[in-house]
Amino acid sequence: MKVNKINLKEKYSKLSRYWSPKIITEMNDYQFKIAKIKGEFVWHNHKNTDETFIVMEGKMNMKFRDRNVILTEGEIIVVPKGVEHKPCADKECKILVIEPRGVINTGDEINELTIDQEEWI
Amino acid sequence: MKVNKINLKEKYSKLSRYWSPKIITEMNDYQFKIAKIKGEFVWHNHKNTDETFIVMEGKMNMKFRDRNVILTEGEIIVVPKGVEHKPCADKECKILVIEPRGVINTGDEINELTIDQEEWI
Repeated sequence: MKVNKINLKEKYSKLSRYWSPKIITEMNDYQFKIAKIKGEFVWHNHKNTDETFIVMEGKMNMKFRDRNVILTEGEIIVVPKGVEHKPCADKECKILVIEPRGVINTGDEINELTIDQEEWI
Repeated sequence: MKVNKINLKEKYSKLSRYWSPKIITEMNDYQFKIAKIKGEFVWHNHKNTDETFIVMEGKMNMKFRDRNVILTEGEIIVVPKGVEHKPCADKECKILVIEPRGVINTGDEINELTIDQEEWI
């Protein structure tokens, strides 16, 4: 089996739209997704799983109902299952998201930002 | 529940020994571990799980039986379960490892590099 590496910068350069995560690799039944974000996402939660965010470039404001957590490059946050959160970024920010296969990006909040079937890049 | 972020640079600054991964956070039953590596590890594999490596600083040479894959900062490799591998680095390299809780660092090869109970940092 040939095992290939993935270069994050190269993958990010292929992303066009904001808030549109793309799968770059899988580990067991977990997926690694990259996204460019800018502006405000929606309040949502994932009932059955934690969700990990790593900021690779820029600054993300992860809003919780009781406070905000500002993350910069090289910072990680694990949002526990069931906890409402709203990722935001004033300027373009590049993130890596790790979560089980099949997680819907907007959780239970189905709206225009919902992506049913995330694609690979 | 208060959700805290983790700063990788700060965590790496607390590491003393090479080849001694420390847990920094968990997502469901998966763990994120940081390690400083330098020199050669041992050939091993993990029968029951894939294992993800992200290079955060420096250069890692991931050896497989049939070839080597050189990874630099911002590069990811997922080693499939059962595949023999040997992480190496000529100079100090900082990596982030993601794998299920309870994985033994040396796989089935129990030796002086084996860490039974990995600690948090």
